[in-house]
Amino acid sequence: MSTPFETRRPAEVMPIYRDPLAPHGPGTVHVLDQRRLPFEEVWIACDTMQAVWTTIREMAIRGAPAIGVAAAYGLALGARAIPASNSGPEFVAAFDRLCDEMAEARPTAVNLFWAIARMRQAARDAAQSGADARVSILDDEAEAIRAEDLAMNHAIGAHGAALVPRFGDRPTRILTHCNTGSLATAGWGTALGVIRSAHAQAAVEVFADETRPYLQGARLTAWELLRDGIDVTLIPDSAAGHLMAQGLIDMAIVGADRIAENGDTANKIGTYTVAVLCARHGIPFYVAAPSSTIDLATRDGSQIPIEERPAKEVLEVFGTKIAPPVKVRNPSFDVTPGELVTAIITERGVARPPYRDSLAAMFPTRGSAAR
Amino acid sequence: MSTPFETRRPAEVMPIYRDPLAPHGPGTVHVLDQRRLPFEEVWIACDTMQAVWTTIREMAIRGAPAIGVAAAYGLALGARAIPASNSGPEFVAAFDRLCDEMAEARPTAVNLFWAIARMRQAARDAAQSGADARVSILDDEAEAIRAEDLAMNHAIGAHGAALVPRFGDRPTRILTHCNTGSLATAGWGTALGVIRSAHAQAAVEVFADETRPYLQGARLTAWELLRDGIDVTLIPDSAAGHLMAQGLIDMAIVGADRIAENGDTANKIGTYTVAVLCARHGIPFYVAAPSSTIDLATRDGSQIPIEERPAKEVLEVFGTKIAPPVKVRNPSFDVTPGELVTAIITERGVARPPYRDSLAAMFPTRGSAAR
Repeated sequence: MSTPFETRRPAEVMPIYRDPLAPHGPGTVHVLDQRRLPFEEVWIACDTMQAVWTTIREMAIRGAPAIGVAAAYGLALGARAIPASNSGPEFVAAFDRLCDEMAEARPTAVNLFWAIARMRQAARDAAQSGADARVSILDDEAEAIRAEDLAMNHAIGAHGAALVPRFGDRPTRILTHCNTGSLATAGWGTALGVIRSAHAQAAVEVFADETRPYLQGARLTAWELLRDGIDVTLIPDSAAGHLMAQGLIDMAIVGADRIAENGDTANKIGTYTVAVLCARHGIPFYVAAPSSTIDLATRDGSQIPIEERPAKEVLEVFGTKIAPPVKVRNPSFDVTPGELVTAIITERGVARPPYRDSLAAMFPTRGSAAR
Repeated sequence: MSTPFETRRPAEVMPIYRDPLAPHGPGTVHVLDQRRLPFEEVWIACDTMQAVWTTIREMAIRGAPAIGVAAAYGLALGARAIPASNSGPEFVAAFDRLCDEMAEARPTAVNLFWAIARMRQAARDAAQSGADARVSILDDEAEAIRAEDLAMNHAIGAHGAALVPRFGDRPTRILTHCNTGSLATAGWGTALGVIRSAHAQAAVEVFADETRPYLQGARLTAWELLRDGIDVTLIPDSAAGHLMAQGLIDMAIVGADRIAENGDTANKIGTYTVAVLCARHGIPFYVAAPSSTIDLATRDGSQIPIEERPAKEVLEVFGTKIAPPVKVRNPSFDVTPGELVTAIITERGVARPPYRDSLAAMFPTRGSAAR
C-alpha cells in the first residue's frame, strides 16, 4: 500500500521530473519546491507551461542546469497547447512566442537561454511534421537536455570515484562544502555526484559543512544525503579543522563556479579555508565541475569578480535576527589557488597540476588567455 | 534630560555593577541579562542575595570571572540581612549558611567557589567588628574581587596593545573569534580587552567572526564593540580566509580556555582554523588570557579533553530548525598548536616561543609537567 505521494516520489533525489506513467506520453512535470526544504518535501505538479514558468520565476527550482531542464520541459508542455490545425510556419511562430515568454522567467541564468535556443531549433526541425510528431520531437529534445546533463554528472562521478581512497576496515570519510548535488542539476550532482558514485562502490561517510551564511550544506546537502541513505554528519564550518587534526577526514571535494586557466577555483565562501586546512594536513582536495565551468580566457583567480551579498543573509537566519545592526562583509565566493587543488574532475577526465598544461590539453579547441 | 534607564546605564560595557550613588553605601546590584542580548539591553536590579543568586542560576550572567564577582556582590547584600544583634560567632555562622546557599547557584564554575572562599575568610576577619563595619568589610572584599579581575584585564590590554602593529594612514585591522569581552569578566575583557586598549591609543577596525554554532561573536562581541563605538564588521567564520587573502587583516587575537606547558591553546571551535590561515598569510596570531588559564601541569594539547556539545546547537538557531535531523559533530573547542601562536599575552607580560621556556620563566613557582 503506497500513498499517492509515495507513488509520485522518485527513488533518486532530483529537482524536476516528468511523469513516466502518464497514459499519453510525458505529461505532468513535477518540481520539488526547494524553498521549503529541508522541512517539507513538496512537489509542485505542473500541467501547463505557465505553471512551470512560475516555479522558475519564484525560485521553487534553482541552480542553472536545473533551470535549463525546467524551461525545456515547460516549453514541451506549451507545444501541446498549440492547435493541431496550425501550419508549420504558424506552429514555429506560436512556439517562438512561448520561448520569448519563457526567457523572461529569470533574467540572468545562462542555461535558461541555452535550453530555450535548443528548443527553438527543435521546433524548426519539427515544423513540417504532423501535430503529434511535433510535440513528440520537442518532448525528445527536452528529455535530451535533461539526459545530457545527468550523463555529464555521472561521468564526473565515475572519474571522481576512481580517486577516492579506500580503507578495508572502515568507510572513506569525505568532507564537502555547500551543495553541489542533484538539486542544482538534472540529477546526481557534481562533487556530490562523485560522493554518490563512490558510495555505489563502497561505504563512504560524509561530513557536510553547514555553509554559512546561506546554509546550503545544512539545508540541502544534508537533506539529499539523508534521503539517499548515505551516512552524513553535519558540522559547523569552523569544526572542519578540528576534525582534520583528529585524523577524521580522508579527502575533501567541492564544486566550482568558475575555474581559471591556472586552476584557480572560485567557489562558495569557505572553500579556500577548507583547501588551506587540507594542505596543512596532507589531505587530498578535489574540485568537481562540468567542463563548462572551466574558463581558459580567465588567466588566474585575481580576474574573477567576487559577488558581495546582502548583509541580511548574515544578520538573520530564516528571518530571525542573530546580531545587532553592525556592518557586515558577506562575500559569496572565494578563490582557491590552483596550487592547493589536488586534481580537477570533469566529465572529460581528471586534470592534474600544472593546470595551465593539463586543462589546455583537455580542451585543445578552446582559446587560452596565455595565447 | 535622561531617562531612568540611561541614568543607570554604565558608560563602559560590564555585565554587573553596584549602584555607586546609593545613599548608604553600595546598594542595588545591577546585572545585565545576557540571555536577551543583543536584542534588548535589560538590567536586572537585585536588592537581595536571593535575587543575585537567581541571575547566576538562570544564566542571566555567565563567564567564570563575572560569576565570581556576582557571587561576592550577592553575599555582601546577604550580610546586610543578618541581624545587627548577632554576636561575632553568630554572624559567621549565619554568613556561612549564605555561602553554602550561594555555592549551589552553579555546580561547576571554579571562580564561584574561589570568590565564596574569599568572602568566607573576610567574614571571619570581620566577626569582632560592629554590625556596620562587618558589612563594610564584606562590601570592600567584594569590590576587591571585582577590581582585581578588572585590573588584570587592563594589564593584559596594556601588554597586548604594545604588540598591535600601526599604520600611519589607516586603522589596524584586527580579526577576533568568539567573545572574550567585558561580558565574560568583571570588565574590559581579555582578547577584546587588548582590542579596547589598542583602540584607546589609535584607531582599530575589528572583524568579528560570528562564531557558529553559538554565535558569541554575532551576539556578544558585535554588541560590545557597537556599544563602545569601536568600528566592527561581522563576518561568517568561513569568510576570514578570503579577507586575509585580500590583505584586509593585519593581526588576529583570541582568548583561551586552557593553555598547556608548550603553548598549545584550547579555545572556542574555529580558533585553530584562524591560526592556520594566519600562518599561511604571515599574519601574527595572538592569544590573550589571565595567568590562571595557563596550566603547566598539562604537557601539551593532546591532554586537553574537548567537550562535545548537544546537536541541537547546530540543528537550530534561536529555536528555529535549520537542517533535517541528521547526525551532528559539535566540538565546543579545538586546540591550536603552540607553533602557530605568535605570542601569549598575560597580565604578567608577553610570552614568546619556545613556550616551555618562556611560560616556565613567567611562573617560576608553579610545577611543570616536564619535571
